Amino acid sequence: MSPEVRPQQFAVLVRDLPDLPKGQSRKEQVDSYFKAIYPDTFYRSMVVTNNKEANKIYEELEGYKKKLARAEAVYAESKSAGKPEGTRPTIKTGFLGLLGKRVDAIEYYNEKIKEIIPKLEAEQKITLKEKQLGAALVFFTSRVAAASAAQSLHAQLVDTWTVSDAPESRELIWNNLNIKFFQRQIRQYVVYVIVALTIMFYMIPIGLISALTTLDNLKKILPFLKPVINITALKTVLEAYLPQIALIVFLALLPKLLLFLSKTEGIPAVSHAVRAASGKYFYFTVLNVFIGVTVGGTLFKTFKSIEKDPNSIVDVLANSLPGNATFFLTYVALQFFVGYGLELSRIVPLIIYHLKRKYLCKTEAELKEAWFPGDLGYGTRVPSDMLIVTIVFCYSCIAPLIIPFGVVYFALGWLILRNQALKVYVPAYESYGRMWPHMFLRLVAALLLYQITMLGYFGSKKFIYVGFLIPLPILSLIFVYICQKRFYKSFSDTALEVASRELKETPSMEHIFRSYIPLSLNSEKVDDDQFEDALSQASRSGSFVV
Amino acid sequence: MSPEVRPQQFAVLVRDLPDLPKGQSRKEQVDSYFKAIYPDTFYRSMVVTNNKEANKIYEELEGYKKKLARAEAVYAESKSAGKPEGTRPTIKTGFLGLLGKRVDAIEYYNEKIKEIIPKLEAEQKITLKEKQLGAALVFFTSRVAAASAAQSLHAQLVDTWTVSDAPESRELIWNNLNIKFFQRQIRQYVVYVIVALTIMFYMIPIGLISALTTLDNLKKILPFLKPVINITALKTVLEAYLPQIALIVFLALLPKLLLFLSKTEGIPAVSHAVRAASGKYFYFTVLNVFIGVTVGGTLFKTFKSIEKDPNSIVDVLANSLPGNATFFLTYVALQFFVGYGLELSRIVPLIIYHLKRKYLCKTEAELKEAWFPGDLGYGTRVPSDMLIVTIVFCYSCIAPLIIPFGVVYFALGWLILRNQALKVYVPAYESYGRMWPHMFLRLVAALLLYQITMLGYFGSKKFIYVGFLIPLPILSLIFVYICQKRFYKSFSDTALEVASRELKETPSMEHIFRSYIPLSLNSEKVDDDQFEDALSQASRSGSFVV
Repeated sequence: MSPEVRPQQFAVLVRDLPDLPKGQSRKEQVDSYFKAIYPDTFYRSMVVTNNKEANKIYEELEGYKKKLARAEAVYAESKSAGKPEGTRPTIKTGFLGLLGKRVDAIEYYNEKIKEIIPKLEAEQKITLKEKQLGAALVFFTSRVAAASAAQSLHAQLVDTWTVSDAPESRELIWNNLNIKFFQRQIRQYVVYVIVALTIMFYMIPIGLISALTTLDNLKKILPFLKPVINITALKTVLEAYLPQIALIVFLALLPKLLLFLSKTEGIPAVSHAVRAASGKYFYFTVLNVFIGVTVGGTLFKTFKSIEKDPNSIVDVLANSLPGNATFFLTYVALQFFVGYGLELSRIVPLIIYHLKRKYLCKTEAELKEAWFPGDLGYGTRVPSDMLIVTIVFCYSCIAPLIIPFGVVYFALGWLILRNQALKVYVPAYESYGRMWPHMFLRLVAALLLYQITMLGYFGSKKFIYVGFLIPLPILSLIFVYICQKRFYKSFSDTALEVASRELKETPSMEHIFRSYIPLSLNSEKVDDDQFEDALSQASRSGSFVV
Repeated sequence: MSPEVRPQQFAVLVRDLPDLPKGQSRKEQVDSYFKAIYPDTFYRSMVVTNNKEANKIYEELEGYKKKLARAEAVYAESKSAGKPEGTRPTIKTGFLGLLGKRVDAIEYYNEKIKEIIPKLEAEQKITLKEKQLGAALVFFTSRVAAASAAQSLHAQLVDTWTVSDAPESRELIWNNLNIKFFQRQIRQYVVYVIVALTIMFYMIPIGLISALTTLDNLKKILPFLKPVINITALKTVLEAYLPQIALIVFLALLPKLLLFLSKTEGIPAVSHAVRAASGKYFYFTVLNVFIGVTVGGTLFKTFKSIEKDPNSIVDVLANSLPGNATFFLTYVALQFFVGYGLELSRIVPLIIYHLKRKYLCKTEAELKEAWFPGDLGYGTRVPSDMLIVTIVFCYSCIAPLIIPFGVVYFALGWLILRNQALKVYVPAYESYGRMWPHMFLRLVAALLLYQITMLGYFGSKKFIYVGFLIPLPILSLIFVYICQKRFYKSFSDTALEVASRELKETPSMEHIFRSYIPLSLNSEKVDDDQFEDALSQASRSGSFVV
C-alpha cells in the first residue's frame, strides 16, 4: 500500500444482502447493519443498482456527443480551406446513415443530445430509486477498518453479508455484484466443467466445422462466393488450409471465450477475471501444446492409461519427450523472433493508426482513441510465458541446446516487455501484484515437472547416480510449502500493519465516495438529494477520523 | 456469544512476535504495534512469560497449605475426642515422610510456608522481568475489535504477529504459546506421522512386549515375584491373559498418549487439543475396530491391495461385512448395557469417594476434591459414539437387527449423558460448540460409507434397482458441501454481527485483564508496579469505550 490515497482502500464490497425487512429500504438496511458494527469508522454506503438501461442511454448520449464533435471539426476544416462560410456536414437519419432524409448534422446531433439528456436524468432517478440490488459498497473513514472488515466474517450464515475487498471502481464488474453466494459456487463449477471439456475435446467441434465447411458445402450455403472459389489457385490453397484456418480462428477466440467464461463465474473484478482466464489458458496451452505434442496420440487416451497406472507417468514423460526436442526448439525460437519482433516494432498498430489518422479521425479525441495502445494483456501473455518456462525446463536435460534459446527469450522479454509495460501500454487497473502467486505456483509446477522428467529420463538411461536427484523435488515441495504459508496470505488479504501506515495527505471521503459512482449515474446537473435513495447519507456531514 | 461479559471475547492471542528491536522491551514492542493499528480500541497487553519455575514454587506452596489445613483438622478432631488439649500431629521430614527427624506438623508447615512465600515473590519478579517470551495476550475495549483482529492478517509475513482468538484463561496451554509458526507446522506433521504409525502398527510393540513378558522372563527379571507366579491356578490365568493385559493397558493409555501428542503440536488451548486427540482416536477406533475386525487380516495388507486397485474398496466392504454382523451387534449391546450402566450408577467413583471420605479426607477442601467428578471427557466419548454411528449405519442394510440396538444406544445416551452433562460433570472449559463441526464431518463420513457399502452389498446380491441408490451419495456430498460453506466459518471465526450485540453489563476491563494473570503470578501482596514489566500499562487509566 502506497502512502497515496486510493479510494478502493477505504471501501469494501458487500454482497449477498439478506431479504429486506418490511418497511426498510436497502440503504437503511446496509447503514444500520454497518453502523452497529463500526460505530466510529463507518462513513457511508452505496447500494449497487442495475445500471443497464442507464448505461445504454449514457452510451447513446456519448455517441452523439462524439459525432457532434466530429461534425463540428469537419465543418471547421471546410471553413479554413478557402471558403469562409464552409460547408455544413449533412447526414441521412435512416439505417446506418445510408437511407432516410438528409439533414444538417450539427443541428441534428444537438437536437438528439437535448432529447436524450432529460431521458438520462429520468432513468438515473428510476435506477437509483427502484433498481437497487442486493449488494453494496461500504466506505470507511480508515484504511485499517476497511482492510479488517474485508477479512472478517460478518454474519453467522456465511452466505449472507459477504464482505470482501473492494476492487478499483474502473475494474468493477457491476453486473456480477448481484449474483448470490451459492449461485456463484454453482457457476464456478459449471464453468470449470465447460473449460475442461473445451480443453480436452476442442478438436471435435473444429473437426466438425472443417468437415462441414468444405468448399462444396460453402458454395451451397453461400452461393455468392462461387466466382471467388472457382479460381483454381485460390481453390487449392483454401482446400489445403480450411481446417487450419478453423483452428486459428478458434485459437484466436479462445482467450476471449475464457475471459467471458471467467466473468460468468460471478467474479466482481476484471483483474480477478483476467487472472482466472489466464489460469484456464495455461492449462490449455500446457495440455495441448506441451503434453499434446509430446505424448502424441490423443490426450484422453493418455489420461486413461495414467489413471490406470499412476506410476507410469514418469515413463511416459521420459519416453516421449526426446522425440519432440526439435519441435520445441523451433517453437521457442519462433516465439522470440516473430513474437518479440512484432511486439517491439508494433507494426500492425502503427499501420492501423496512420490509416485511421489519414482517413477517419477528425477530432483530437478520435486521434487519441486511435492511438490508445490498451493494456499489456496479461490474460494471454502470462500463460504463454509459463508454457515456455515449462518447455525450457523439461527439455533442458534432454536437449540442452534449448537453454540458450530460453535465456534469449526471457532476456529479450525482460528488455522488451519492460519497455512496453512502462512506456507503451496503459494499465487498465492495478491489482497490487496479485498475479504473482498465480505465476509463482505455475513456475514451481514447471520446476517439479522438470525434476520428475529428469529423474525419469536419467533413470531410463540407467545413469547410476540418479538417486542423488531424489532430494530435489522434495526440497522444491518444502520451498513451495514455506513460501505459500509465509507469503501467500498477504497477497490475498491486506495486512493491517500496512494499512495503518501514514497517508501522504488527508483523504477526502466525499471524493473517495464519488469515485465509485458509475459514469452513467454521475451527472453534473443531478443534485445531491437524488442520490440519497441508493447512496446513503449516513454520517456524511460527520467529522472524520484518519 | 451470550450477553454476559466473558474475558476471552475481549482478548486475542498474539504469537510469533519478531525479534526485539534494540532498546525496546517486549511490552513496548507489542503496545506500540497494536496502538498504531487500533488507536481507539486497544486496552492493554500481557506478555507471556515462562512460568515453569514460578508454577513449581506455587504448587509447593499450595501443597504445604493443604497439608497445614489437614494437620490442623487432625489436631481439631483429636481435641474434640474427649481430650481438651488434643494431640498435635507429627511428621517425619525425610524421604516420603518415612525417614528423618519427627517434628510437629503444624509448626513445620507454617515454617515452610513462611520460607516459600518470599521465594515465590522473588521468582514472580524475576519471571515478569526476565522470562518474557515471544507471545502476548492483547486486550481490547470492544468485542468487535477483538473478534475482527483475530480474523485479520496483521503483518505482511504470515509467520510474524500471528493473531488468533484468545482461549479462556483456564484452558490456555502456556507452555505452547512460545512455539514459533514453522515449528508448529513441523511438529504437526511429525505428530501426524507418529499417530499414523501408532494406528497402523500398534500390534507390533504389544506383540513384542507380550512375547518378552512371558512368565519365565518375568521370573528372571523380577525374582521376587516367584512365589506368586508359582501358584498353579494363577499361573494358568496369567499365561493365558498376559497379551490381552498388555493390549488393555495400551488401549487405556492411548487417549492420554494422543492428548499428549496433540498438545505437543503446539496448540494453544486445551479444548482444541482435546478435539485434535478425539479426531486421532476416531481414526484409531474406526481403522482397528471397524475396518480391522471387518476385513480380518492385517490392515496394512488390505491398504496395499486397495491402493493397487482403488475400485476394489466397494467389493472388499461388501464381501467382508456380513460375516461380522454378530460381533458388532454384541459390541453395541455391550456398550449400552455395561457402558451406560457404569456411567449412570457411577459405582466406581462412588466407592472411591466413600473410601476416601472414610480413611483419607480430613478437611472440607479434601472432601470436595474427592467428590469432584471432572469433565465429560469428550476426547474418548465422542470418537466411540462416532464408531457406533458408523457401525450401526453400515450394518443396517446387512443385519437390520442392529437398528433397534442403535436406537436404544442413542436414546439411552441422550437421556443419560444429558443428565450427566447437566447435573454431574463440571465442564473444564467452554468451547462454544466447536466440537460440532468435527462430529458433523464424521457423521456424514459414516453416512457416505454406509451408502457406498449399501451400493456394494446390494450390487453383489444382484438387486436390480440398485441404480436408484446412486443419487444418494451424490446428494449427501452436496449436503455436506452446502453445510460446510454456509455454517463452518462461523464455528471457527466469530461473526462480527454477533460480537456487536449489546452486553448485559458494562465490562470491567481491569477485571478482564486480571482474569488472565496465571495463579502462580497473582499475588495479593505484589503491588501493581511490579506487573508493569510483562503486563503493559498502556491506556490503563484511559477512558474506555464499549
